[in-house]
Amino acid sequence: MSGAAPRALVFDVFGTVVDWHGTIAAEVRGRGLPVDGGAFALEWRAGYAPAMDEVRRGVLPWTTIDGLHRRILDRLLARHGIALAADETAEFNRVWHRLDPWPDAVEGLHRLKARLPIATLSNGNVSLLLAMARHGGLPWDTIFSAELFGHYKPDPECYLGACRLLDLPPAAVMLVAAHPSDLRGARAAGLATAYVPRPLERGPGGEMEPWTEGEFDVVARDFLHLAEQLGA
Amino acid sequence: MSGAAPRALVFDVFGTVVDWHGTIAAEVRGRGLPVDGGAFALEWRAGYAPAMDEVRRGVLPWTTIDGLHRRILDRLLARHGIALAADETAEFNRVWHRLDPWPDAVEGLHRLKARLPIATLSNGNVSLLLAMARHGGLPWDTIFSAELFGHYKPDPECYLGACRLLDLPPAAVMLVAAHPSDLRGARAAGLATAYVPRPLERGPGGEMEPWTEGEFDVVARDFLHLAEQLGA
Repeated sequence: MSGAAPRALVFDVFGTVVDWHGTIAAEVRGRGLPVDGGAFALEWRAGYAPAMDEVRRGVLPWTTIDGLHRRILDRLLARHGIALAADETAEFNRVWHRLDPWPDAVEGLHRLKARLPIATLSNGNVSLLLAMARHGGLPWDTIFSAELFGHYKPDPECYLGACRLLDLPPAAVMLVAAHPSDLRGARAAGLATAYVPRPLERGPGGEMEPWTEGEFDVVARDFLHLAEQLGA
Repeated sequence: MSGAAPRALVFDVFGTVVDWHGTIAAEVRGRGLPVDGGAFALEWRAGYAPAMDEVRRGVLPWTTIDGLHRRILDRLLARHGIALAADETAEFNRVWHRLDPWPDAVEGLHRLKARLPIATLSNGNVSLLLAMARHGGLPWDTIFSAELFGHYKPDPECYLGACRLLDLPPAAVMLVAAHPSDLRGARAAGLATAYVPRPLERGPGGEMEPWTEGEFDVVARDFLHLAEQLGA
């Protein structure tokens, strides 16, 4: 590992800790919707960055991820000609609260937590992250969310806001993420970085963001390998 | 219990979950300071409400509880003619991060958590509450703090801010506290209330705030009794 040992870890969540693609694909199949589950998951997720960007540019007022997911879902259902009752749509939208952890995540987080404070640092809203933690048994010390800062990652306010609440200098805080773009945002704000690639994030054969060897302080195969490298 | 069952519990912390008086008195004795431990704890705590009020009235800019505790401590040490090195004073000030839970607290929180989300709702800053949770094994789902809202309890912004982050209407959220004044603030904001008196909060024979039978939705002897009444 390059740099000093971190004094706290903050985690990206969607894709890094939990498997949105697999969970949503299974839910679509379970609901018997007349679409391909994996393709629907990708379409839903594809609306995410543009929606946050509308918030960032002030086209939309501050909207939680629950609200953005619902906007995207309504459009997707219309596009596919799927009609659901309002409460059914609301319940479907909450699939993001029920995303399943990657197989190594819970054990890895417990090991890491025994040594260091662990928190989310996600664009997901607090109530979503809280429900997801209870669903999957994710043992967070606390939940940090873009919602607390009124800014979505990779805006620096998110990374620096978490450091302020931890009362730690950025260099003492490490972001763990499966996305090089998120890690670059953290690094630009002065945080340490741990890259945990999740090759199955977009399903079998899905694309991954390019990155360069040596760009991040730690690279780990999974959270157990991360724990090993951090002496946890 | 009067009212509908709560869907989340938020907890006052100092005095309700942890024993500030006993922990600080023991620390003062352990440091061999030439003052009475219990009296020193009371003096330190007595500076707390006036200091928050200075923030509330804009006499002081937003200051965390760590910062307010330190201001009060510096004055107290000067008043008692005690000279400590700067790092020793900083370490002493962090005794508030190491407060011990009441004997029923950890078991009670685990039982309650099995049924409902549990979070702090404290004037303590996030890093203080996080360190305290790790010290005492307090299994919070997440940490809500006045620091997130820029307002100290009993300002309504705190109670309503927690409900907003939980994405629940105030009536679905119950504040658990040992202080009638805090509970009245929560009730005024629309929250449900559970009063857990802690007769030893200010040490043996210490005074407690007056309250009226029927004022709060639940009254419990301790967190196990609270769990019982909430079916947890």
